[in-house]
Amino acid sequence: MRGTGLSGAGINEIVRESGAPKGSVYHFFPGGKQQIVAAALAEYAQTVVDFIERTLAQRRSPRAKVRALFEAFAKRVEHGDFRYSCAAGTVCLDLDAGSEELRRAVAGTLNRYVEAIATHFPCEDARRSQSFAGLLLSAIEGAYIRSRADRTSRSFREAGIWLADLAAREFPDRGPKAS
Amino acid sequence: MRGTGLSGAGINEIVRESGAPKGSVYHFFPGGKQQIVAAALAEYAQTVVDFIERTLAQRRSPRAKVRALFEAFAKRVEHGDFRYSCAAGTVCLDLDAGSEELRRAVAGTLNRYVEAIATHFPCEDARRSQSFAGLLLSAIEGAYIRSRADRTSRSFREAGIWLADLAAREFPDRGPKAS
Repeated sequence: MRGTGLSGAGINEIVRESGAPKGSVYHFFPGGKQQIVAAALAEYAQTVVDFIERTLAQRRSPRAKVRALFEAFAKRVEHGDFRYSCAAGTVCLDLDAGSEELRRAVAGTLNRYVEAIATHFPCEDARRSQSFAGLLLSAIEGAYIRSRADRTSRSFREAGIWLADLAAREFPDRGPKAS
Repeated sequence: MRGTGLSGAGINEIVRESGAPKGSVYHFFPGGKQQIVAAALAEYAQTVVDFIERTLAQRRSPRAKVRALFEAFAKRVEHGDFRYSCAAGTVCLDLDAGSEELRRAVAGTLNRYVEAIATHFPCEDARRSQSFAGLLLSAIEGAYIRSRADRTSRSFREAGIWLADLAAREFPDRGPKAS
């Protein structure tokens, strides 16, 4: 799923990798591929939310949080040799008119990421925190695309620099000391 | 391609849509699907470069250019009922280890977009213009993903507001009057 999205997650591939008989896959997932992918996404989302939370919690200032977030994703793509993306992003770009259930699962996943980021950029107007978190997530999802194309992590690092400056100006530094 | 990337662009679909006999498709594109998709991408890229160029040329100030760019993409996804993305992005997230030729085609396409944007944000350090254009492109590609998931154009509009503010502060306004 992180490699090529829906097209890489066929029932046959799942059966082969899991070793389970095909009949039992359909027994537990009568909705077939879409239901399996939605369930896998929900599980995957939690690991990403934990990754985001752990990364942002290690820094105090808004600037340092943004830099750390993009640096962490840069390392993630480097370790995966630029072949894997966010599963929510890859699956999303394989959605068609027949995948409404899965579309809602992807939207829910992306919203969980926005929420996880937004809590680290609090301000009086909660919508503003959400909107900034949304910008960061868009930049991350887009940087994944560009990093897979040019096989560098530059897209993450350049976004991290610009957006860290923006965060430093736009959000109050509430920590006892900026890191 | 703009809908589901590589998985929606099979030889059989191409033959069906074009009405050409399958043999002639392989005659003109001995490299098969990858070669066809690369050729289609190159053609598609020019329309996107024209779209970017036309949109940015209509505004003078860096702030207005960024707002107009994201507004134009927001309208684009609305008109497509949130079902289409940038073909370079969708194809990119279907790349695997066997699609090196196509990966280079996608990288070339994305670089053309970066160049088209960068010329509208000139500054003394050309790498800085490129880097800012790269940030804008990452935000656009990521906003496509989020807009397809939640079926709104909000991701484009929120990015447009934040990044227009950033552009206004970071790039000189060279126009006779800001629009």
